[in-house]
Amino acid sequence: MNDNPCLLFMSSLDDPDEWTRALHEAWPEIEVRVWPDVGNADDIDFALVWKPEPGALRRFRNLRLIVNLGAGADAIAADSTLPENVPIARLADTGQAEMMSGFVLLCVLQYHREVQRLEVAKRARRWDYVHPKAHADTRVGLMGLGYLGVHAANVLTDMGFRVSGWSRTPKVLPQVETFAGLKELSRFLANINILVAMLPATSETYHILDREVFYALPRGAKFINVGRGSTVDESALLQALLGGQISAATLDVFETEPLPPEHPFWLMDQVTITPHIASVAVPETAARQIVANCRRLLSDESPEFVIDRARGY
Amino acid sequence: MNDNPCLLFMSSLDDPDEWTRALHEAWPEIEVRVWPDVGNADDIDFALVWKPEPGALRRFRNLRLIVNLGAGADAIAADSTLPENVPIARLADTGQAEMMSGFVLLCVLQYHREVQRLEVAKRARRWDYVHPKAHADTRVGLMGLGYLGVHAANVLTDMGFRVSGWSRTPKVLPQVETFAGLKELSRFLANINILVAMLPATSETYHILDREVFYALPRGAKFINVGRGSTVDESALLQALLGGQISAATLDVFETEPLPPEHPFWLMDQVTITPHIASVAVPETAARQIVANCRRLLSDESPEFVIDRARGY
Repeated sequence: MNDNPCLLFMSSLDDPDEWTRALHEAWPEIEVRVWPDVGNADDIDFALVWKPEPGALRRFRNLRLIVNLGAGADAIAADSTLPENVPIARLADTGQAEMMSGFVLLCVLQYHREVQRLEVAKRARRWDYVHPKAHADTRVGLMGLGYLGVHAANVLTDMGFRVSGWSRTPKVLPQVETFAGLKELSRFLANINILVAMLPATSETYHILDREVFYALPRGAKFINVGRGSTVDESALLQALLGGQISAATLDVFETEPLPPEHPFWLMDQVTITPHIASVAVPETAARQIVANCRRLLSDESPEFVIDRARGY
Repeated sequence: MNDNPCLLFMSSLDDPDEWTRALHEAWPEIEVRVWPDVGNADDIDFALVWKPEPGALRRFRNLRLIVNLGAGADAIAADSTLPENVPIARLADTGQAEMMSGFVLLCVLQYHREVQRLEVAKRARRWDYVHPKAHADTRVGLMGLGYLGVHAANVLTDMGFRVSGWSRTPKVLPQVETFAGLKELSRFLANINILVAMLPATSETYHILDREVFYALPRGAKFINVGRGSTVDESALLQALLGGQISAATLDVFETEPLPPEHPFWLMDQVTITPHIASVAVPETAARQIVANCRRLLSDESPEFVIDRARGY
């Protein structure tokens, strides 16, 4: 019998020491056990996991909450080996949102400022002055207005960019023109310089970014994907890039990761490839939110940010 | 005799039509005359100028305010051909501040995210995953806390970076550790990953960024200059870059502009060169502030943001 709350940490991508420190900082009484050193399986109250080993969580009979160590819930929502009656919560981590918004802003500013033209001029030792444009002259469209999408929309509007947003269900955001559902998709796309995809991977979003979407954008638009690879029909994107309909793309996620070395994207100067690094959970900030959610269960409140396994996010 | 307020526009770099439109939007009654079509010289109440022709403003006997069309006041403060008794005002343009902060954030994010490493990996078709760091892990130091420096400091802290600031006279800013005067300069520098220079060009700041400053930074620090070229001892910077003390630099301003084609900076991969494009006045937002300042004179108030010609900014 263990009186202290007990959390199991299971991720091959994240540093267990850093997370243990952050969790203790947020909740000194919590005991953190790092997989595979679980001790008495009945002690485990909470599990903080990224792509847990299939079936591994079924042994913990007293498990009350599974927390997904990441923003994308597709893998965990599709994992049929997880215990059915334990709620799964996503992160709502301000540090992760800040990192994601920073990455989106970096990509948007690189296009707005024509960094590639400046780099070419520099290599040619050419002083290539072009009078710079105000942020308000660039229209950014965000597809996906979840926790991270809304944060990015706010950061972009704060910086003076003109922002519109699209989501499955209607949303209202300050200073953002919003569109909802497939019926409003082409109106949303018609007026955008830079399209940023921040969509979750679900059956509804599979290949939603297809030929039709790319050609509904103004010719020469830029595309940024920091959501999920499965939302993009990569052959349609390839064609749109080769035909100049999309003039440049920054891709952080792909249908297959790591992106196979023979993929044509690697050889295209107009494609920036980053290895799925747009954002991760930040232990210090995420631990506070995870602990707050775990504490809710101990005082018999419902957990927040619970994933709908059927909907997939 | 002309009853409407009358402004003379004189800049070879900025678009007179765009500025005339913006000024009319902000003040429908104002008459805008574009150099050299001045009409009756006695009509001119205000002059909006960038590097005016020497002596040209002396003909306007009723001139009440000269507005410098730019953030840097060095050229206009040093212009001994200007009428002595007419105040010179700087811009305090939110659009320009936003553009400058956006550029600083772009440069900071490029270093924080190791964009150069990612680009090398992409060209080598290599999926080079490195777990990304939180913004809070990067310490940015701003030298120069004027109108633009303070705006950049706020934007960087809003995005979660750890920011410190240095200025000639003491300043207090939320969430920013501030230092003042030459005595506190080395303490300010000791703990910085990225140094951003946003200093005005004055006799006090000439070559203030010298060998001693670069070697007071932690080894491998990055350097960004969006202020004035004369604040940097370029041979000292070159040596610090060649020796690895400064691992990379982004330079938007230079001792001589355009940067001469034979300058060694052009050939260095660790040096990013941009052609003095970090920020410019944005007609729409600047016109509102210019008009407000002109109106103050008509109601016998003192103009704001007046340049101290002796101090040079």
